[in-house]
Amino acid sequence: MRSSALPPVPLDKLLQRLRQVLPADCIVVDTESQRPFECDALTLYRELPLLVVLPETADQVQAVLRICHELAVPVVPRGAGTGLAAGAMPHPEGVLLGLSKLDRIVDIDPVARSARVQPGVSNLSISNAVAEHGLYYGPDPSSQISCTIGGNVAENSGGVHCLKYGLTVHNILALELLTVEGERISIGSQALDSPGYDLLALITGSEGLLGIVTEVTVRLLPTPETAQVIMAGFDSVTAAGDAVGAVIAAGIIPGGLEMMDRLAIQAAEDFAGAGYPRDAEALLLCEVDGTRAEVASCSQRVEALFKELGATSVVVSQNESQRALLWMGRKSAFPAVGRLAPDYYCMDGTIPRSQVSRVLNEISALSKKYQLAVANVFHAGDGNLHPLILFDASDPEEVHRAEQFGADILELSVQVGGCITGEHGVGLEKLAHMSSQFSPAELALLEDIKAAFDPALNLNPGKGIPILKRCQEYRALPARHRHE
Amino acid sequence: MRSSALPPVPLDKLLQRLRQVLPADCIVVDTESQRPFECDALTLYRELPLLVVLPETADQVQAVLRICHELAVPVVPRGAGTGLAAGAMPHPEGVLLGLSKLDRIVDIDPVARSARVQPGVSNLSISNAVAEHGLYYGPDPSSQISCTIGGNVAENSGGVHCLKYGLTVHNILALELLTVEGERISIGSQALDSPGYDLLALITGSEGLLGIVTEVTVRLLPTPETAQVIMAGFDSVTAAGDAVGAVIAAGIIPGGLEMMDRLAIQAAEDFAGAGYPRDAEALLLCEVDGTRAEVASCSQRVEALFKELGATSVVVSQNESQRALLWMGRKSAFPAVGRLAPDYYCMDGTIPRSQVSRVLNEISALSKKYQLAVANVFHAGDGNLHPLILFDASDPEEVHRAEQFGADILELSVQVGGCITGEHGVGLEKLAHMSSQFSPAELALLEDIKAAFDPALNLNPGKGIPILKRCQEYRALPARHRHE
Repeated sequence: MRSSALPPVPLDKLLQRLRQVLPADCIVVDTESQRPFECDALTLYRELPLLVVLPETADQVQAVLRICHELAVPVVPRGAGTGLAAGAMPHPEGVLLGLSKLDRIVDIDPVARSARVQPGVSNLSISNAVAEHGLYYGPDPSSQISCTIGGNVAENSGGVHCLKYGLTVHNILALELLTVEGERISIGSQALDSPGYDLLALITGSEGLLGIVTEVTVRLLPTPETAQVIMAGFDSVTAAGDAVGAVIAAGIIPGGLEMMDRLAIQAAEDFAGAGYPRDAEALLLCEVDGTRAEVASCSQRVEALFKELGATSVVVSQNESQRALLWMGRKSAFPAVGRLAPDYYCMDGTIPRSQVSRVLNEISALSKKYQLAVANVFHAGDGNLHPLILFDASDPEEVHRAEQFGADILELSVQVGGCITGEHGVGLEKLAHMSSQFSPAELALLEDIKAAFDPALNLNPGKGIPILKRCQEYRALPARHRHE
Repeated sequence: MRSSALPPVPLDKLLQRLRQVLPADCIVVDTESQRPFECDALTLYRELPLLVVLPETADQVQAVLRICHELAVPVVPRGAGTGLAAGAMPHPEGVLLGLSKLDRIVDIDPVARSARVQPGVSNLSISNAVAEHGLYYGPDPSSQISCTIGGNVAENSGGVHCLKYGLTVHNILALELLTVEGERISIGSQALDSPGYDLLALITGSEGLLGIVTEVTVRLLPTPETAQVIMAGFDSVTAAGDAVGAVIAAGIIPGGLEMMDRLAIQAAEDFAGAGYPRDAEALLLCEVDGTRAEVASCSQRVEALFKELGATSVVVSQNESQRALLWMGRKSAFPAVGRLAPDYYCMDGTIPRSQVSRVLNEISALSKKYQLAVANVFHAGDGNLHPLILFDASDPEEVHRAEQFGADILELSVQVGGCITGEHGVGLEKLAHMSSQFSPAELALLEDIKAAFDPALNLNPGKGIPILKRCQEYRALPARHRHE
């Protein structure tokens, strides 16, 4: 896959320089040791880097960036590699900058309800570390056991509870950032707002294109007094979709509101035995959390709404172990569906809640057209779809059909007023669809912002935003950023 | 005040061009008619513009921007002029672009809980228009009767309820924007997150430096079932500050949590007769809202906490009219304090909650040093101070002391880990303090972002971010943005 069109990379010189700033075991040179880094969780896209580096400190990251900047070597940052859009796929002539060794929880401040953590700390381990203070970290992507906070910032990750508690951007207070030149930038504070442009939001979700995050100050939330799950089966996705709308319209903001269709229900039940209704066409899991009084009141209202709207079965969790069991099915839905076929392709379009039934019915029609089964498991409350297209990656023709099917779902999401990604990012995967989402003027503005941070386009090049012809002109500009 | 150093502005040509795209009564040429536009609510800073234009449609705004871009005329946008940092002060050689005539509520969607409104719609009139659907718009700056949503977006405005419901950026979904060249850009969607960089957050709070907003899609919130105010007097600001921390630490998120000091309490009580304790050194107003069950539970806990922490008096509102009366004092505190002296200067530093007592005590010491009285009325829950420095603007020496006093408060805010503005913006007023807040590398990044949107620096020039020497170089660059 290595391109021969690019000029030769000064590998020897690069290695010599990197060895001056990194311990020997932090540089991965041989191809076999590089294999684990050739893709992220979207395994359809693979590439070997020139080098993998695994620095242990922010100072080492800074030194690596300075060297790469000086030698004009592309840099691709990587967290845990759980991304689903090939955002961490290596560049064949570049350095893959793995941040997994920066895994320290630097400081926990229970009074200010915040913690400073390095980017390689896993999402779940933050909540584990602060549990003794009655606190937790809100966003909970399905991959939370392994995904890192650095990757969460890069993708602005959500999860089941983002409907009520927001995305990553709503749950972080400050960032330490290194620019592509290796300059240190401090962003944000404990305050609700900061002067200057909102760099915190700009960096969050920027998919490693604008800078390298070396420290994150996260907001911590008080663990709710209690929580309850209301599970309801419906005899059509339309009926379940209407019930989702009704809960939101009633002014209830659930901690999470998830939907699964028949194929997902059956796969999850086979896998987890959570007591899901096998004969339902759609299943809703609605969690309410808060004080005991609030939960009791909301839970009754949700149960009544579901019954009123034709639920064929309703179960309300009566204790913590039953609540955990009901979630177990949902949380294992991806691996459960994964047992149904050699591979699955997880899409991530987001649509207005009012369009859920329509889009699910169209996905069902596309499933027949492309002769590929699809299971739907998704964040219904915020309209973030996760259709899992089942296919066999060893059959190139089937891969092609799966990709076409996925592309149709993304275009459909845009057509109904939604967008091509809710929380997985654009990466390499959705680059072509950015032109459906944005006008040329809008794309040009995104490029201008990229150029403000990284005029030479050396940071995660070729990802996130399509680089149009005019962007090449920037490369010819005087390097106005190199003004040390 | 008009500078003679600038090259002559082609006023005739500009007028001739503008008259082709605007009705005659939308152009204000004579000096006396321009007077109402010479300042915003920070009246210490005044300047007359070359011209005032008051377009009636987004198409007219676009036409104005194209003409100004072509003739290289600076453009300063203005909403209702309630800003407190001189962000809307005119440029002497530029066009003041008033957006007050774009005042239509375009669409209300009660199911999606959103409304599309033009920038000149006042904050409060959005809530009034959607009240029949049981909805309201969350952010509630003190000026909400008159301030416009366009200005709220420019300043990322907060208000009493932002502690629980967030700032403007958390309560808007989409923007229609015109770039300085007059290009239309659509930003955001109904979805929780969008692909590409977070332009919605970048524009929000950018103080009119990056583009002109012509439409805002706001999120609407369900009106809470009920709300209750707990008012408590304390015999020291330290005791009241500790009580604020205790409420937050208890996991209660009040709808609002406001603090006033002795001078503010007495002025407000004289003005509104709300039943505030005149002898208290500090007063807290804590509002809890939600379901009846939730409010009853939280209200009891807050009352118990306040008593435990030494409150000298506690009153809990028993009905809506009592609740309204208790707020009346707080809401009229600015005009009430305004009666104590010819003028007041409202500061806006934000500090960590843990520093509230320390900072209030230091402000008290500064008050003695500068021999100027100060009343503190502020959003204690999120540490957003609003010290009102009393002075007489007709005495230049007193003006100087007031400005020095204000500057000391801002520097103090930065020193204790806070920032120079919570919700009023940098404008012209706090430009010098940006260098206390940010490093040269950080300021350079802010400048690069400004240049990505507005390379010629024609949009609200001289505000928001200090333009360092190197930024002048951009002006000499080929106009890479003019690529139509």
